[in-house]
Order: sequence, then C-alpha cells, then structure tokens
Amino acid sequence: MRKVLVIGIGAGDPEHVTVQAIAAMNAVDVFFVLDKGGSTADLTAARHAILQRFVTRGYRTVTLPDPPRDRTAADYSGAVREWRDERARVLHEAMAAEEGVGGILVWGDPALYDGTIRILESFGDVDYEVVPGVSSVQVLTARHRVPLNRVAGAVHITTGRRLAAGWPAGCDDVVVMLDADLSCRAYRDEAIDIYWGAYLGTPDELLVAGRLGEVLDEIERVRADARACKGWIMDTYLLRRLS
Amino acid sequence: MRKVLVIGIGAGDPEHVTVQAIAAMNAVDVFFVLDKGGSTADLTAARHAILQRFVTRGYRTVTLPDPPRDRTAADYSGAVREWRDERARVLHEAMAAEEGVGGILVWGDPALYDGTIRILESFGDVDYEVVPGVSSVQVLTARHRVPLNRVAGAVHITTGRRLAAGWPAGCDDVVVMLDADLSCRAYRDEAIDIYWGAYLGTPDELLVAGRLGEVLDEIERVRADARACKGWIMDTYLLRRLS
Repeated sequence: MRKVLVIGIGAGDPEHVTVQAIAAMNAVDVFFVLDKGGSTADLTAARHAILQRFVTRGYRTVTLPDPPRDRTAADYSGAVREWRDERARVLHEAMAAEEGVGGILVWGDPALYDGTIRILESFGDVDYEVVPGVSSVQVLTARHRVPLNRVAGAVHITTGRRLAAGWPAGCDDVVVMLDADLSCRAYRDEAIDIYWGAYLGTPDELLVAGRLGEVLDEIERVRADARACKGWIMDTYLLRRLS
Repeated sequence: MRKVLVIGIGAGDPEHVTVQAIAAMNAVDVFFVLDKGGSTADLTAARHAILQRFVTRGYRTVTLPDPPRDRTAADYSGAVREWRDERARVLHEAMAAEEGVGGILVWGDPALYDGTIRILESFGDVDYEVVPGVSSVQVLTARHRVPLNRVAGAVHITTGRRLAAGWPAGCDDVVVMLDADLSCRAYRDEAIDIYWGAYLGTPDELLVAGRLGEVLDEIERVRADARACKGWIMDTYLLRRLS
C-alpha cells in the first residue's frame, strides 16, 4: 500500500461531501470496508450511493468482517481497546495484501469519535492522509439553525456515558454523542434547552427541539419508534443550560 | 428578501467546500459581505476565488462596512454585543432593500464562533437556512492527522480568554480558538502536547506540534513573524494533557 486516504464523507447526505473528498475518492484504488453487519445495511447503501455518485474511475473494494464487540463489558475502555486491536490486525493484514492507494470512508469527520486515525497511526508502516468531513454535530446545528457556542462561550463535546456521570463542570453548552439511552433524562427538571437529531443528513432525519422537560417524552417516543422500525439509531444532541 | 442562505465555505481551502455549499452559492441572487477592512484583504480575495471557481450564474454583491469594534473594552461581552447590534442594523437595512435569495458566506462552520445565525435569528422577519461547512478545528486535526478526542473521551472547545482564566475542569483535550496571545503559555511546564495551526487550509498554512514546553518558543516566533509579515493571524490549537 503506497498510501491510505482517510476520507470524511459527512454525516449521511451526499451533498455534504467536499470537493476534496471527491478528489480523494477518485484517487483511491482499493477501498477497505469494515462491515458492521445487518443493522447498518442502511449505512452501507448510503456509502455505495456516495461512491456511485462521485467516483468516475474503477476501484476495488475489500470488505472485512468487523470483529464482535462486547458492549456490555464493565471495563468499557478495555473492551473498546480489545475490539480496536482486533480490527487493526484484520485491516493491517488486508492492506499488506494490496497495492496502490488505499481508501477508508468515514462517516462525519475522521477526528471525532472514529477510530480509523488511531488504527493507522498504530501501524507505524502505513503512510496516510486525513480528509476532513462535515460531522453530525454540524448537521445538527445547521438543521436546528442554532449556533454551537454562545457569544465568547465554551462548548463541551462528550459521550452519553460521561454525561450520566455528571454535568461537565464550568460549561453550559454540551454536545452529547454515542448516547445509547438519553442520559440527558437526569437533567429534565433543570432549565435546559435540547436540540436533538437522529439519522442526521439522511432522508429519515428526525429533529426535536425545546425545553428539555417539555420535549423529553416526545424524544423518547420518537426515538423508540424509529429504533424499532429501522433496527438501529444514531442520534446526537446539544444541551444548552439557560442562564 | 425571500430567503437567506448562511453558507459555511470551509476554513480557506476551496477544496473544503461541500457539494451542498456549491448548490447554495448557485441559488443566491445577492451576496452580503461585511467588510472588515484592510487587514483581511487576503480573506476577501479567498472568498472571491471560491465564488469564481464554483458559481456559474450571475449574482450581485452588497458590501457593507463593518462597524468598528472596541477590542480593548473591559466589558468584553458588552462590547461584542454592541458591535453585533450595529452590524445587525446595517445588514437588516441592506436586506430590506434587496429582492430574491440572499447569501452570506461564512468561513469555517456557521455554528462555531460566528455571529451570523444569531443576527438573522434576531431579525425575526427573515427566513434563513444554514449550510454546514468544514471548520478550522477539523482542518487542524486533519493536517496533524490526530483524533480530536481520545477513546470515549470528551473534548472542550474554548477561547483564549477562557483558557487564560483556568484549565477547563474535568477535560484533558482542549481546543482553543480566538486566542489573541497564546494563553497556553501558562501551562508550558505541564505534560501537555500541542497541535497548533495558523491560516489553516490556505497556501500560508503553518503547523507546529510537540510537547508544549518544547515547541512553545518556536510557535511564538513563527506566529510573530507571520503576523508581522501578513498584518493578521488566525490560529487555533489543540492541547492534549498526557495522563
């Protein structure tokens, strides 16, 4: 492998792909796809749609089975590490067997809650470049037409797990990602606005905004229905504590 | 004005423009430009280059003088508010005098440290849409080829002024923007890595990374030279406290 391009392709809408990402996709000889199995068939289809729309030359695709991941482990970081190590091993082996320019498409931006850069860095012997992409956080704020920060204010980006452990100190604007179970529920009685979105940038996009205590039940219902219907959910939200 | 499109055009590199932003630019009849005067002639030229490259139909441009801003005021928020109010008044007047679809190009992403959404929201009588763009934070991490967050970790985005007041509690990964004077200097003796970038996404891009205490002098020198040479600087950095 001469070089690997890690290409951010936005949160789901092919329109969010950048000119640089299009050029990068067209420079790739082999795309490596880590298949997450049935529940994300929608994402696989969306990725194919992006390639079909923007790539004008021939390419190969190497699909790798994603190793199973223990999401119930008490040692969350340990489980993620193990899963990442195995994923890295499989990918490194596949890259060693290929020639030319490799490519990995990443939803959103490769720097935000994605392990690809970390994996490639761990190889040590693979040269790579990163192409930034529009993240789901940016699609969330754009669709709700709100700024992420308040004037001269700070923003905290965190996970559902961390929010469940406590509100981040010294910050009133908090973005929550990777939240399996709406950890914001703990703050429903406080003066907080929520801007929630699921499947951002896709035709199934869902948006709810309002005072947390007033719209939380609606979000829980909408979220449960969508998850039952599609078999998976990917959502994110901004919490804004009112002063 | 039927509608106004707030279009994120990336941090400087025309390649970072999205397909959606290109379509949006081509739907605009009148672009409103808030001129910040001499020191940002480079940015004006870069914006024109983007329009020239991607817009295939005719458009009008209304350039508005940016009201002066008191950057030395003790009441920082108050000074920003006043400046924003005057800016809003000028823009609202100009929009009332125009017809068709309006457009405002925003560097980076319109949700991050930009006042345009807040201004349009304050009008109440102007319908607007937001087109997300690649922010300088994303270009910074892409160019340094590093993730923004650590595994399952949080990220804090803040200003130089806030960092000068103290390190954000409970977070070891901090992005600093709008820092007039490298507030990170206060932490030079701690175990922290810095990923610094200036003029990100432009041909003048500068990148320095390393242990804060070891590279801070270099960053200060590079930064002072660049500022003296160009008359302005726009930089941002990620601080990663080592555990």
